[in-house]
Amino acid sequence: MYSKRLINAASGREPCDIVLKNCRVLNVFTGEIIDGDIGIAEGRIAGIGEYKGKEEKDLEGRYVVPGFINSHVHVESSMVTPQVYSVEELRHGTSTIITDPHEIVNVGGADALIDILNAADECPVNYYIMLPSCVPCTEFEHSGAVLDARQLRLFMNEPEVLGLGEMMNAEGVINNDRTVSEKIKEFSGMIIDGHAPMYSGKKLNAYACAGINTDHESVTFDEALEKLRCGIAVLVREGSACKDLEAIIKGVVESGIDTSALAFCTDDKHLADIRREGTIRSNIKKAISLGLEPAKAFQMATINAARIYGLKDTGAVACGYKADIVVLDSLEDVEIADVYKDGVQFKNITEPEIKEKKMMRYNTGLMHSVNPAPLADDAFDIPEREIYPVIELVKNQIITKKLIMTHEQITENLKNGSVRKIAVIERHHSTGNCACAYITGYGLSHGAVATTVAHDSHNIIVIGDNDSDMHKAVEQLKKINGGYTIICDGKVAGSLPLEFGGLMSTISADEFIPMLDDIIKKAYELGVDKDIDPFITLSFAALPVIPEIRITDRGLFDVTDFRFIEE
Amino acid sequence: MYSKRLINAASGREPCDIVLKNCRVLNVFTGEIIDGDIGIAEGRIAGIGEYKGKEEKDLEGRYVVPGFINSHVHVESSMVTPQVYSVEELRHGTSTIITDPHEIVNVGGADALIDILNAADECPVNYYIMLPSCVPCTEFEHSGAVLDARQLRLFMNEPEVLGLGEMMNAEGVINNDRTVSEKIKEFSGMIIDGHAPMYSGKKLNAYACAGINTDHESVTFDEALEKLRCGIAVLVREGSACKDLEAIIKGVVESGIDTSALAFCTDDKHLADIRREGTIRSNIKKAISLGLEPAKAFQMATINAARIYGLKDTGAVACGYKADIVVLDSLEDVEIADVYKDGVQFKNITEPEIKEKKMMRYNTGLMHSVNPAPLADDAFDIPEREIYPVIELVKNQIITKKLIMTHEQITENLKNGSVRKIAVIERHHSTGNCACAYITGYGLSHGAVATTVAHDSHNIIVIGDNDSDMHKAVEQLKKINGGYTIICDGKVAGSLPLEFGGLMSTISADEFIPMLDDIIKKAYELGVDKDIDPFITLSFAALPVIPEIRITDRGLFDVTDFRFIEE
Repeated sequence: MYSKRLINAASGREPCDIVLKNCRVLNVFTGEIIDGDIGIAEGRIAGIGEYKGKEEKDLEGRYVVPGFINSHVHVESSMVTPQVYSVEELRHGTSTIITDPHEIVNVGGADALIDILNAADECPVNYYIMLPSCVPCTEFEHSGAVLDARQLRLFMNEPEVLGLGEMMNAEGVINNDRTVSEKIKEFSGMIIDGHAPMYSGKKLNAYACAGINTDHESVTFDEALEKLRCGIAVLVREGSACKDLEAIIKGVVESGIDTSALAFCTDDKHLADIRREGTIRSNIKKAISLGLEPAKAFQMATINAARIYGLKDTGAVACGYKADIVVLDSLEDVEIADVYKDGVQFKNITEPEIKEKKMMRYNTGLMHSVNPAPLADDAFDIPEREIYPVIELVKNQIITKKLIMTHEQITENLKNGSVRKIAVIERHHSTGNCACAYITGYGLSHGAVATTVAHDSHNIIVIGDNDSDMHKAVEQLKKINGGYTIICDGKVAGSLPLEFGGLMSTISADEFIPMLDDIIKKAYELGVDKDIDPFITLSFAALPVIPEIRITDRGLFDVTDFRFIEE
Repeated sequence: MYSKRLINAASGREPCDIVLKNCRVLNVFTGEIIDGDIGIAEGRIAGIGEYKGKEEKDLEGRYVVPGFINSHVHVESSMVTPQVYSVEELRHGTSTIITDPHEIVNVGGADALIDILNAADECPVNYYIMLPSCVPCTEFEHSGAVLDARQLRLFMNEPEVLGLGEMMNAEGVINNDRTVSEKIKEFSGMIIDGHAPMYSGKKLNAYACAGINTDHESVTFDEALEKLRCGIAVLVREGSACKDLEAIIKGVVESGIDTSALAFCTDDKHLADIRREGTIRSNIKKAISLGLEPAKAFQMATINAARIYGLKDTGAVACGYKADIVVLDSLEDVEIADVYKDGVQFKNITEPEIKEKKMMRYNTGLMHSVNPAPLADDAFDIPEREIYPVIELVKNQIITKKLIMTHEQITENLKNGSVRKIAVIERHHSTGNCACAYITGYGLSHGAVATTVAHDSHNIIVIGDNDSDMHKAVEQLKKINGGYTIICDGKVAGSLPLEFGGLMSTISADEFIPMLDDIIKKAYELGVDKDIDPFITLSFAALPVIPEIRITDRGLFDVTDFRFIEE
């Protein structure tokens, strides 16, 4: 960090590398707007004042704010590599992301973590990592890997690592579960992210007492306020599915509470949404439109997050800080005129550096991670019974309902197309595990839809109206090393390879976005209900922590009773 | 930090150790006052709500705030041990101190640092240490020790150590001095305290760019504001001599700037002043009286300092935080009703624990640190010259003036008592170094006054009207292993042993305060000028960084020219 050259430039003994002249700089420490020139050397801010530079640019009185910090994000949700994702973030002003590679590590374990750490070094943003705390997510399914406290410890001193990722096993925390407490103890000197939706009262107190530092699951102001009072920093989330910002920020504005323990995040946001409006940029804009003082909104997006995560040289346009800078045409509308990362203009970052680096320095295993055991012809047979438990999908939500249907109802509904078969096939270790059940609410007039994105263990999920297309879909996913596929009458009607771990594509954003649009369109053409996302909804069908009923490779799981449904 | 018992108490499964009922708790995260009971277990806050405890205390609606943090203090200025000092701080609500043992380490080096680290473990406050960055302070005198970057590195992972202490060699920082930059590089991942009085513009920018995180030397609001804008946290100082708070806080209130990068400190405050009004307690009270919102004043005194120094479980009354608590009868007047440290009431801390632990676990060397070489009878002779440079003390200030007097003037002034001899004798390594000169403005009708407290190298300083009493004073200091002494006609007229390094007494505060009062009174009786502190003024006569003229063991030093005055 120490740089003789930077000190010489700051003191005026040497010219700066670049000087941004005629700026109106937001100072996040004092909340003021300061007029001046920004001197930059060695990728850092030398000072604000009158500086001379080898290169000078007149910003003509535009606002300058620090690069934004996305304080909690799962990059896998974008389905592109960290390198490609980072450029999309940076385009809209986010220069620092704090990520939890929970999904890919559930597939590839320590190997995947090493790939992501290597990828982080190639990204044009400050790419920090919270180590996934829940691998596997639950004991009710087979994931690709297990990371215990000892394995996590191996990574805790890596320079990109800030602490332990969201501790989703909140019940395990407050009940002193041994495998959970081992991890928490190990990371007590670092930051520990929480995940405590609707936790309150003594349960929340117990969770905070374990040493949890942040939470991004608050959906109301009251929930956020109670967490803040407990000493848990609140990361206000606005992603593609979860939109919590309006409720929380309205409460903040009305109550006038201190905002220093609040920051912004997206958690999960799709690439096309990011391309359209950015991430933290749109959070700031929305917060200001709801009445939050602009200075406070930008503090949440920058220095607050930096302080919460202990980042010393990020989150401010101030002496010695990284020259991660956003130039704005308008403060309130967060209209981005330009972005600098380490003092380099955005247009000079994307072109030469990323194009050749967009591929992961992947290890072979993760590029061939779809390895189901060969399926028997009758793998998707469901034995005849008097009644059947059925998964009912709920429109525009990820919860499901548990229905009971008689044999006659099933027969009738399969015929009229309101019920389909769904199967989950273990794909990491060729165990041959396979479970099959009935599902309603998906639509799909004919064919099979399948994915290797299947939270959180990412086995194969396939849904269909006939066993033959379902078999073919599994074969196709194996062939493309994972991704999305649609099979109709034995033919591939659509295919989106996600060859890195079955979760992420290694192509560019420009290539990827239309391919994704295309396969979603194809699914709707085949009759998937328009109020359902054909693949994302499917990907949550195997997550055994969200009510009421799920299917894993081990069978149908009743989330309310927290146990498998016996045949 | 992880405690199963705490989690069980927080969740209500087990009773708390103690519950403080009916409190009005200041929440430093939100700025609110929350009514409730505070549950405490294992010395930490389990939660606020309705808790049952093995012991319960009704606080009858009193305010509860977090224990205060003194963010920068030299304990040596109190002249008592860390253990004794800590109790005086805690009495007035300070439960965390961040100290720089710069003085004692300049005497005893790494051995002294180990003593202080050991003492820290016995203190009833959170006793954090910033490693002294300037040992020796300058090259113009012989101190007791040298600590280079390599030696400092040995201590950087000690649990009490937060970073590098105030980097007083600010010119060395901005000019890339090698021994300075080595230390800064070593500590770039930790906190580095600054010391940049009146630094501004490009010099200040360069200083900040080196990675300096804090400064406590601002005396005006404009100076503080400029440092804040640079990203340097401002520790607002109110000690016995330096009183900067009014100027800075008035500016903060008038400008309405954000206060999150501001904290409070004392730097140097005498024990009797602390006993009378406390430290941070009086800072808060004064800040509120100047119009600062109480919540903001308490945030400065607690969570702000904790965030600046990266302390995770201190500075808030919130789940999992240390139960370091101040109970107030009044928020605005900061009238302290009670103090808890780690959940233990103050009255139960002082009596049993401290009385037997007040002695340092000293190493033998530091209890025998006054080792001047035997002095020749003519050691204090000053060779006859035509003119002499003379040190002039300035009333109520620590700066000095350089005067020139002829031989005739000297002879006359020695006779009328306005000029006295001053000598500095190297006392660490028996080098035999001794310098003698003339001084005016001190008073003293007859006898000799001497001290081993002599910033920053702490050699022996003696002043007198006759060589015999001066010799005797040096002998007496050697005999008592350092401290203050007054000799008159060959007899000891006053003696205050400071046997730990010649800087600190190992007796209790109750014993120490009257002894100090007594020897100061004695000095005034012997004619020391009433506008001079007989010992503190003397202790700065050897500090070769404050204008205009000083005397070290190597000779008279012209601070303006930054060189020794040739004979």
